[in-house]
Amino acid sequence: MSRKQHESESRLERGTRVLSEIDGVAGENVVSSLADIAPDFARYVIEFPFGDIYSRPGLDLRAREVATVAALTALGNAAPQLKVHIEAGLNVGLTREEITEVIMQMAVYAGFPAALNGLFAAKEVFACRDAANEPSGQEHAA
Amino acid sequence: MSRKQHESESRLERGTRVLSEIDGVAGENVVSSLADIAPDFARYVIEFPFGDIYSRPGLDLRAREVATVAALTALGNAAPQLKVHIEAGLNVGLTREEITEVIMQMAVYAGFPAALNGLFAAKEVFACRDAANEPSGQEHAA
Amino acid sequence: MSRKQHESESRLERGTRVLSEIDGVAGENVVSSLADIAPDFARYVIEFPFGDIYSRPGLDLRAREVATVAALTALGNAAPQLKVHIEAGLNVGLTREEITEVIMQMAVYAGFPAALNGLFAAKEVFACRDAANEPSGQEHAA
Amino acid sequence: MSRKQHESESRLERGTRVLSEIDGVAGENVVSSLADIAPDFARYVIEFPFGDIYSRPGLDLRAREVATVAALTALGNAAPQLKVHIEAGLNVGLTREEITEVIMQMAVYAGFPAALNGLFAAKEVFACRDAANEPSGQEHAA
Amino acid sequence: MSRKQHESESRLERGTRVLSEIDGVAGENVVSSLADIAPDFARYVIEFPFGDIYSRPGLDLRAREVATVAALTALGNAAPQLKVHIEAGLNVGLTREEITEVIMQMAVYAGFPAALNGLFAAKEVFACRDAANEPSGQEHAA
Amino acid sequence: MSRKQHESESRLERGTRVLSEIDGVAGENVVSSLADIAPDFARYVIEFPFGDIYSRPGLDLRAREVATVAALTALGNAAPQLKVHIEAGLNVGLTREEITEVIMQMAVYAGFPAALNGLFAAKEVFACRDAANEPSGQEHAA
Repeated sequence: MSRKQHESESRLERGTRVLSEIDGVAGENVVSSLADIAPDFARYVIEFPFGDIYSRPGLDLRAREVATVAALTALGNAAPQLKVHIEAGLNVGLTREEITEVIMQMAVYAGFPAALNGLFAAKEVFACRDAANEPSGQEHAA
Repeated sequence: MSRKQHESESRLERGTRVLSEIDGVAGENVVSSLADIAPDFARYVIEFPFGDIYSRPGLDLRAREVATVAALTALGNAAPQLKVHIEAGLNVGLTREEITEVIMQMAVYAGFPAALNGLFAAKEVFACRDAANEPSGQEHAA
Repeated sequence: MSRKQHESESRLERGTRVLSEIDGVAGENVVSSLADIAPDFARYVIEFPFGDIYSRPGLDLRAREVATVAALTALGNAAPQLKVHIEAGLNVGLTREEITEVIMQMAVYAGFPAALNGLFAAKEVFACRDAANEPSGQEHAA
Repeated sequence: MSRKQHESESRLERGTRVLSEIDGVAGENVVSSLADIAPDFARYVIEFPFGDIYSRPGLDLRAREVATVAALTALGNAAPQLKVHIEAGLNVGLTREEITEVIMQMAVYAGFPAALNGLFAAKEVFACRDAANEPSGQEHAA
Repeated sequence: MSRKQHESESRLERGTRVLSEIDGVAGENVVSSLADIAPDFARYVIEFPFGDIYSRPGLDLRAREVATVAALTALGNAAPQLKVHIEAGLNVGLTREEITEVIMQMAVYAGFPAALNGLFAAKEVFACRDAANEPSGQEHAA
Repeated sequence: MSRKQHESESRLERGTRVLSEIDGVAGENVVSSLADIAPDFARYVIEFPFGDIYSRPGLDLRAREVATVAALTALGNAAPQLKVHIEAGLNVGLTREEITEVIMQMAVYAGFPAALNGLFAAKEVFACRDAANEPSGQEHAA
């Protein structure tokens, strides 16, 4: 519902809103890490991917994160961003099992090493969450 | 339902069944095109991707095709297989709009040329289907 | 001069203006080819790459086209877009020799096949221009 | 034996000699196709890959062509060069079966689409040779 | 001889046997590292690559490792798997010189950075083996 | 001026001269790091890229480094070499702003993750230079 495109909202506002729904902490980290070298790019990262693309109504966020985890696993050269989107996938309601299935499937399209390295990235993200979420270890504890 | 793993079924039988649900014609084309050069590989193409991976219960076929269309668009070097899976996505219930959204999103992760070439592939597949499905042009005409 | 960011201009207006300076025909072709499948993406293609990036003052258009021809040659999976940017490079003042040098250099970073395929793309673009510009064959005939 | 590095030979002479042992026709085609756009690059293509690398004594030409066919299949974005090296592999003594095995193996490291497209390239090369070598169809007919 | 496909053997048994001939320790590491996240994938890693592909009779294991080291060097995005296969290459009888030649050759097909990073990976593997095999430092000490 | 190709100079001498103009320290590091594993390759790294390509008169070194930084950012799998060429770009007269612009532009052609990882590499190089050049922090202090 919150992805609805409010008429009065700027792309930056919309992007910030959608990104915070997906992964607010990662978004803030990217913005702050770019502040001293390419502050405009921090804005672009929010405006185009999140203000323009992820906020479009034609595909739900779960499917969008399936697509992104698949692509980043297959490309195999952007480990930090893959971890952010494994986290994001969990945030928008994908289960660990679903994310693991997406990554395993990439063995078919990008080879076993890409899938293995994707699984090791997922294992790291899951372990971090378990450490942070103790004692429950559940993504969406009631 | 038909993806359920029957105990008595071989991987080849299961893969053939799942592949025929996704895209029987494309599957038969691959098998026949490999018959004179690598017949064992035709079997592997059915057994591992479809008998092992796509038939797993942890992710539905719609999400699997989202993942595959995303990865093949992002990799950008397998146009024939991308077209097969755009077709397959329609076959398992994705709408043209959803497939178009997945491909557009790849501009974020693999650049605009990859997304553009993916959209042109989709345009070709959609046009073929329209030509074949006249006069209705609908994916799932009643 | 025309890349200056006019305050009152929208991103789409600015992008259209910059794109027409670089390669108006190619821009129009992309927009019209996307009209029936992804019209919003046609707008994004103008807004982000040309309205946001190419219009930035920190790097001149000749250097921007050097960068783009280099990247597309190295990636090796986007031949149509490489040709557009070889054309664009000539339009913004690069010589055929400079473009050829950029492409040859990619042998070092992406291998000889990528450089060879880039040179063959350049050869095609140059031949098209020669055919169109007869009898002069000069990029910037007075 | 002919790969031995003769002291008095230039890199270009040595490269030409080794290339003609591997695939003289393809070599001549590349040189002539570059003559009007990048003649120096035609020289580099012979000097570094063939004069420096393929002529080194530490690995035989059969193993070198196994490596090249594997890499070009896996990269998946240089179909013309892959065909040249499938041809070259046959010329230096690899069998069709061995080349097919190398390409199939790439499914493990670069995914099934890369392997499939490699097999289709091989099929084309084998068919051309059969057409040219009728009635024998043998690579090394006595 | 041990790669012969025994009729009564399962793919998992055959894969385990072939993998242990190539690199038993690395195989066990992959299996145990996947145990808590994707145990089925650990099985697939053994079954398809090793039970189906490496165990095929049409290409010897030395040539198979030449192909794999070449592909992983060229792709350049799977350093851990490249190291495993440099190790595996030594295990099946390739010399350090032969492996170094394969990697150097990739400069031609994937660029100098890919070859350099491959050589640094090899250097690390060789140093580890030297440290482990002291005082002899020989791969196949009698 | 110093890139002029002296008749009497060998490729190795010319490459060493050009490389030292671009980045002498990095060149020496590569040579010494290859000394024990592939000393011939250390020579090739100087001869072909620097003795043959960078020393060609048709493109100035600033444009050559724009091309290289663009390609390595887009490929996204050679971080050490990207850092060397960001450094090299500064050495031949590109400003930090120009390098940052080139990297940002790669978001268009290779996706946002590639551009982000390129920016983080640049940030590291700039910080190292600031630490080394204190108190001035200027690339070309008078």
